[in-house]
Parts: sequence; C-alpha cells; structure tokens
Amino acid sequence: MHQFSGYPSSEPHHHPLSSLSVDTQSLQNQIDELATFSDSPAPSVTRVLYTDKDVAARRYIKNLMGLAGLSVREDTIGNIFGRWDGYEPELAAVGTGSHIDAIPYSGKYDGVIGVLGAIEAINVLKKAGFKPKRSLEVIMFTSEEPTRFGISCLGSRLMAGSETLQKALKNTFDSQNVSFLDAAKSAGYARDKDDLSSVHMNYGTYSGFVELHIEQGPILEAEGIPIGVVTAIAAPASIKVDFEGDGGHAGAALMPSRNDAGLAAAELALAVEKHVLESGTIDTVGTVGILDLHPRAVNSIPSKAHVEIDTRDINETRRNIVLEKIHQSAIDIANKRKVKLSGFEIVNQDPPALADNKIIEAMEASSRELNLDYKLMVSRAYHDSLFMARVSPMGMIFIPCYKGYSHKPEEYSAPEDLTNGVKVLALTLAKLSLA
Amino acid sequence: MHQFSGYPSSEPHHHPLSSLSVDTQSLQNQIDELATFSDSPAPSVTRVLYTDKDVAARRYIKNLMGLAGLSVREDTIGNIFGRWDGYEPELAAVGTGSHIDAIPYSGKYDGVIGVLGAIEAINVLKKAGFKPKRSLEVIMFTSEEPTRFGISCLGSRLMAGSETLQKALKNTFDSQNVSFLDAAKSAGYARDKDDLSSVHMNYGTYSGFVELHIEQGPILEAEGIPIGVVTAIAAPASIKVDFEGDGGHAGAALMPSRNDAGLAAAELALAVEKHVLESGTIDTVGTVGILDLHPRAVNSIPSKAHVEIDTRDINETRRNIVLEKIHQSAIDIANKRKVKLSGFEIVNQDPPALADNKIIEAMEASSRELNLDYKLMVSRAYHDSLFMARVSPMGMIFIPCYKGYSHKPEEYSAPEDLTNGVKVLALTLAKLSLA
Repeated sequence: MHQFSGYPSSEPHHHPLSSLSVDTQSLQNQIDELATFSDSPAPSVTRVLYTDKDVAARRYIKNLMGLAGLSVREDTIGNIFGRWDGYEPELAAVGTGSHIDAIPYSGKYDGVIGVLGAIEAINVLKKAGFKPKRSLEVIMFTSEEPTRFGISCLGSRLMAGSETLQKALKNTFDSQNVSFLDAAKSAGYARDKDDLSSVHMNYGTYSGFVELHIEQGPILEAEGIPIGVVTAIAAPASIKVDFEGDGGHAGAALMPSRNDAGLAAAELALAVEKHVLESGTIDTVGTVGILDLHPRAVNSIPSKAHVEIDTRDINETRRNIVLEKIHQSAIDIANKRKVKLSGFEIVNQDPPALADNKIIEAMEASSRELNLDYKLMVSRAYHDSLFMARVSPMGMIFIPCYKGYSHKPEEYSAPEDLTNGVKVLALTLAKLSLA
Repeated sequence: MHQFSGYPSSEPHHHPLSSLSVDTQSLQNQIDELATFSDSPAPSVTRVLYTDKDVAARRYIKNLMGLAGLSVREDTIGNIFGRWDGYEPELAAVGTGSHIDAIPYSGKYDGVIGVLGAIEAINVLKKAGFKPKRSLEVIMFTSEEPTRFGISCLGSRLMAGSETLQKALKNTFDSQNVSFLDAAKSAGYARDKDDLSSVHMNYGTYSGFVELHIEQGPILEAEGIPIGVVTAIAAPASIKVDFEGDGGHAGAALMPSRNDAGLAAAELALAVEKHVLESGTIDTVGTVGILDLHPRAVNSIPSKAHVEIDTRDINETRRNIVLEKIHQSAIDIANKRKVKLSGFEIVNQDPPALADNKIIEAMEASSRELNLDYKLMVSRAYHDSLFMARVSPMGMIFIPCYKGYSHKPEEYSAPEDLTNGVKVLALTLAKLSLA
C-alpha cells in the first residue's frame, strides 16, 4: 500500500498538489441553477425520478461532466458515470458521487453537492496538473430518494446486486399507477429490454468510493468543525402499513358502530414514537412521514389509511426490536379498533455499513494536509454509500449545514464549507487514485 | 289552511290522485346512468363541483327536467330549477330537490334520489292527471358536499343568504389553487359578474320545501319501516386545523430535537374521538376525514399537518362544548409538542333545523294514505334542507338504505324503497301545492 501523502513525487506524470483552487462561485451558481429544475416554487426543490424536471437536470449534469472532460455513459436505469481515464486504466477506478433527486419541497444541497462537488473536484485536480493513476469516476445515482416508487437508493441498490429488487421492479408502480419500467422508458432508459441485471457491479469494480454530502445534522455546525469523516452509516428500515374499516357517513354513523381506519393510523403513528423513545438512546429514530386517508373527505369516516414509517439506528439489533414492536402495535390496534390490518410490509431492512479504514485514513490525511479540523462521526441518514459499501471500500465526507436542516427549503451550506468539502474530496481522490 | 287530503275534489282542474304509478325501472336506469359521470371507476362515484363530469351530469339533469315538461333555469352559481307552473302561478311555489355531487369514491344514491326522484314525482303527478295550484319546482343544489372548496351546502347556503359566505367565496381556492369564481366560470357559471347576491332568496320564496333522501343510517332498514319523516336536522360544525413544526430529515434529526407536526395531528385526531365519547350520548359524533402531511415523504419529518374535523349533535350546546374541547386540545398539543398552531378555523357552526309542522303533517298523511308505515326521526346527516329551512318551511322524507351505508360504493336502496319514497314525495307535493 502506498503512503498517502497527497504530494506524490516519485510517480511519473505527477505534479505536486501544492495548491487546490476551488471555483466556489461557479459551484454555487451550478447549485442554484440545478435548483431551478423543480416542480415546486423556489426556494423549495421538488425533483422526482424520471419526471421532465429530472430528465432536464440529468442533461445538465451530463453537460457539466462533458465540460470537465469526462467521458459520459449511462446504465439502463440512468445511473450516470463520468470517467477521467488514469494512466493505468486497467486498474479498478476510484468512484465518487451522489444523487440529484429531491423529495417534494426540499432543498438544493442534499445529494447535489456530492455530484456537482465531485465534478468540481475533478476540475480542481486538472487545474492542479494532477494525473490520475487509477481512473476517477463521478457517479450520479438514480433515485436515492424513495419518493416515486417507495424504494430508496434505487440506483446503488441495483449496482450492489439485489436480485429481489430486480424482480420487484417489474411489478412496481407509482401512486399514479405508472410502472417503474414505463417511467424509465419515458425518461429514455430501459429501452431495449426489461432486464436490469446489467446494472449490477461485482465487489472490486471500484478500488474505493467516496461521497461528499451535507451532514443533515447539527453537530459540525454546533462544534465549529468544517469536516466530518464518516466511520459508519446507520441501519435504516422502512415499513408500509394499511388499515381498512367500514367507512361511512360522518354524520349518520354513530360512534359505537364505527371502525375508523384513520384513528388506527393515528394511534400507530403515536406508537412508533413511543417504541422509539423506549429504546433508551438518542441513536434510535422513527418517523411517520406519510399518512394517507381514504376517501379523504371531511364528512366521511376514513375507510382506509396508509402509513409509511422510517426507523433507523446505529445498532441493527435495537432497530429490529423497534420494527417488531411496531408490528405488534399494528396488530393490537387493528384488533382493538376492529379494523383490518390489510397490509404490513417491511419495504427495506438494511444493515449498517462501515467505512473502510484505508479510506478513512485518506480522508483524515487530506483534512490534516489542508489544515482543516475534522471529526469522526456516524451518518444517521443513509446514502448511496450504504450500498456502495457492497461494491467497493467506502467512505464519506460531511460538511456542516445550517442548523442541521435537510429535506426542506431552508437547507443551506456556506460557500467556505462547500470549498473545504471539495478540497478534501479532491485530495482524497488523488490519494486513492495513486494507491 | 286547507285540509291536506290528497284527494281534492272541490278545486277546479283536479283529477283525484287515485293511483300513483312510479316508473321504477326508468328511475333505476337514470340512477345507474348518472353514476357513470364519475372520476373514479364503478361501483364508486366521484363527482366534484364544476369538473367536466359534474358539468356533464348537470346537462343530464337539465335534459330530464326538459323531458318532464319543466321549464329550466339556473342561477349564477349553478343551482338548477325546473318549474311546473301551477294554475295560480303568482303564489309562492313548492320546492323539492337535493344534490348530485358526490364525494370521492362514494355511492350513487346520496342526493341523487332527491333530484331524480323529484323529477319522477313530477312525472307521476302528471300521469295521474294532477294539476298543481301552486307551482312545483325541482331544485338541484350546487355542491352540497364540501369536497372541492371545503364548504358544504354551498348552493343552499347562498340561497339562504349568507353575506359572509358571498364575500369569502371571492377568496376561496381549491387544493389546486383554482379560485371558486374561476372554477364556476370554467363550468359556464358566474359569467358576467362576480356578484353572487342574486342567488339569495327571501323567506317565503317557497311556501314549502321537501327533500327526499336515503337515511344514511341503519334505523329504517333494521326496523323494517319504509318511510322516515324527518322532524329535525342535527347541528353540524366543521373545523380546519393546521400545525407547523421544523420538519427535517427522518434519519438525522434526533427525537429530542423534533417538533413533528404529523404527531400533533395524530394526537388531535384521537382527542376528537375522546371528547365526542365524553359527551355521554350516542347523539354526538366527530370525525377526522382529512389529515394531510407535508412534505409527505417517508424520510422527512412532517413540517406541516392539516386536519379537517366534522362534529355534529342534535343538541347545539353539547356540540359547541365539543368544539371548545377540540380547540383547547389543539392548543395543549401544540404547546406540549412545541409546534405552532398556525390555523384553527371553524368553517361552519350551524344550528340544527326543525322541520315545519304542517309539512310533517303532509308527509304523515301521505304515508298513511299510501298505507306505508313511517317513523318520525332526526336526520343526523345534514342536507340542503338545513339551509332551505331559512328560505321556507321545510321537511324531509327518508327511505331505508342497505346497512345505513353512505359515502361509499356499497350505498344502496332497493327499488321498492325508491318507489315508496317517490310516491310519498309526489303526494306530499300535491298536498302542499293545493295548500
């Protein structure tokens, strides 16, 4: 293993990386411009998989990759790759990237800085005269957010090789009853065949993968530390629950005769909170982000309720205990309220992922060489890196964000934090490229 | 006051109403045909104010009125009137009617039989050779259901002369941000001016008003009684509540830092149920039919929640106590959960309405003369009759419906019950016409 110094001198074709110059204004302009591809008004961003806005944003990214001198390719579900060939191109490449899809009414930094920042890191390395040994690849992952089809990290999950997911996607529909494959085709993907197996990559396809991301938590900002070096990603799980009752007229159906699916859902939402708090540690979180009533009329007793629950923990066992308790509560509430528990589906139940020690060391060394204070930390949010850990040794670089806000329009990272993040990413990529 | 015999012989131009022949098959066909004007698949019906389906259904009704020999007019918001001139046309007319709009995924009888049944009642009286003294008017009221603009009984409320509502409608928007007036214009109404005052009718415009309706409750079916004679309509109220919190990422924001607007909404829904049950009588009901979360993403803490509550009682004071308790709960929950109670609007808080004694007598006499058992009862659902009671003496005729189901696709009334209802309506109209 090479010593990662960041200032290689013994290898051919290298210039020393004595200065890394980030064009922060240009990066900020790109972040602002990308935010205009949105289905909700500024300052919010809504960019959902395979919509017109998503397709336009993808075009924008591919164009930027081209301007950075990267050769661009896409796989059958629209993961986008921009490659800078190294002088030993037969070696496994070093990957970096993130996503640009945005949940409804969210902000413009989540994911985006890991794509635009990666392209800028390439520009920085080129300006510095760096010559990569291993090729460098910027990846834009398809649908990290579960917005449209209820499946998070769709692109990286398929890369990591989920055959179950490959099969499931042939029968996956959005809320408008559009199938995944039809949606992909309408965006210009999945054209020739419905076989998604080509997306899969074997472990070792990349020698390393690094993702730059906003923290989405308040710690770095509160402690005044510019860089977070991620050591692990918490174990996420999500559940869909459906209750069914008889419904009826809100005036005529008297209370004793009711079995209100909406009240069952309300009780379950509060039970999720209770079970999470019972874990006794702040590392357990649980959220009901979706609660839909049917027929959704003020004068009609809900006959159906649909609930989607997200729960995470850095400890997988503890997370699974919460899942079990939620399941038992759903059963108990259905019994008590005489509604039918017509669905209880664990959509995903992923283990945590550990960052690779050598990549952690490269990120730490890069921070030190750039005189940037850093903190080792856990990512409580999950990312494509959770799945890239199955394809490659993985690491993540966090930068501070305002009040820890994310998934809302107020999401913000200061230009100097963006600059620091891109520098650490660039130097880390350089080290990994030469390793 | 005349004695209502139903078999007048001393007046000119009368034939005795010795037989009332309802074309039940034709009425059933019309009910089935009207149900096809729907934005959801059969057997459900979804027909929302001023949509294309609503406009087509209105055309269908106007056509049937024309075929029945009625002269048709519409007011500026689309209340439709079909008039059969009496031989003393200067006297106040007798009104009958209901609505044809249908909440999402509901059934085909609610409201509809009070319009189609009224037209058939006119046909029955014509076939029987009846000549009305007072004119008879069939009314199709605009938007009894609050689906689109959150306002129930929009047409009859405006007829009854709510100046507050007239003003409010100039700034009322649907969930797609379409204004009431733009929606009305797109359906061909409110064309020349935005002044809705012409809809108003003074008390006495009608000498009486009778509405035929399915019970929307289980009593008549359970007791095997074909006709309900309504003596009062319960006092309805509805409320819109909005909570706002900071939202955030479902993974990164730890539980102690959260103020989840969705959980506040869930607690309020359960508090509504609790306060209603505390009233100690089955006559109090309360329902949360709408509970919307924002941004409605599984991995996002709800930053906003919108709740719509319906509560009713035959006792207005008791109903108002429930409203007060719900308000207090909303305040307490917001304080406890550190969310903002950004909205608490009592959308309507209507008093109960009493049926007019003379109209009750006419309905009772008609039932007796037709050898139909009847029951005096309270309407727990409200109807356009609640507001027509401010325009005219009012009465309502109920017929049984399957299991009391309403506001869902299983809503059903048997042909013989429809026939009985139309007969009692026809005879009652005849009596009131001659009074």
